[in-house]
Amino acid sequence: MTYGFLNAMKTRPGQRDEVVKILLSGTDGLREAGCLLYVVGVDDTDDVTIRVSEVWRSKEHHAASLRLPETRAAIAAAMPMLTGEFSSQDYTVVGGLGV
Amino acid sequence: MTYGFLNAMKTRPGQRDEVVKILLSGTDGLREAGCLLYVVGVDDTDDVTIRVSEVWRSKEHHAASLRLPETRAAIAAAMPMLTGEFSSQDYTVVGGLGV
Repeated sequence: MTYGFLNAMKTRPGQRDEVVKILLSGTDGLREAGCLLYVVGVDDTDDVTIRVSEVWRSKEHHAASLRLPETRAAIAAAMPMLTGEFSSQDYTVVGGLGV
Repeated sequence: MTYGFLNAMKTRPGQRDEVVKILLSGTDGLREAGCLLYVVGVDDTDDVTIRVSEVWRSKEHHAASLRLPETRAAIAAAMPMLTGEFSSQDYTVVGGLGV
């Protein structure tokens, strides 16, 4: 079942641009890993919130992607710049435009 | 600036499938209206939550789409089946895969 994952995270002050760069640096391998959509955005109401909206072929594809060396390296690089406040939600995609 | 909009809504018991059908029925005109992505999904943890993740060419395109007759008709049809509990968030899309 097509899997949707929404994630919001907060960076330490002044480090959002750098985290966004990391999040966008690893998109090359996403498609082969089973990712259908990966949207990275930032809130306009503060300088620290990043939102990621992802759609994957299945929940298992998403879980497997977290074990890839490039994903692990990106997470390790970003983690020190994050506050640890995450808000995530998964769901089942049923249709739409672009999926 | 590319505009992202996340929306979660709750339906009255037993009416989620019908609301999903309405949300997916009006996707034909979305692209011409400036919509880049429109993902409709449902939570697995309950029977009443629907999540929509949208990406538009601009905030203005999204606002204009809400004034289209077909959008207004879809909202009018769905509204009686919703509880009125919405949780929405907009943001600026900076990149990714599929956008």
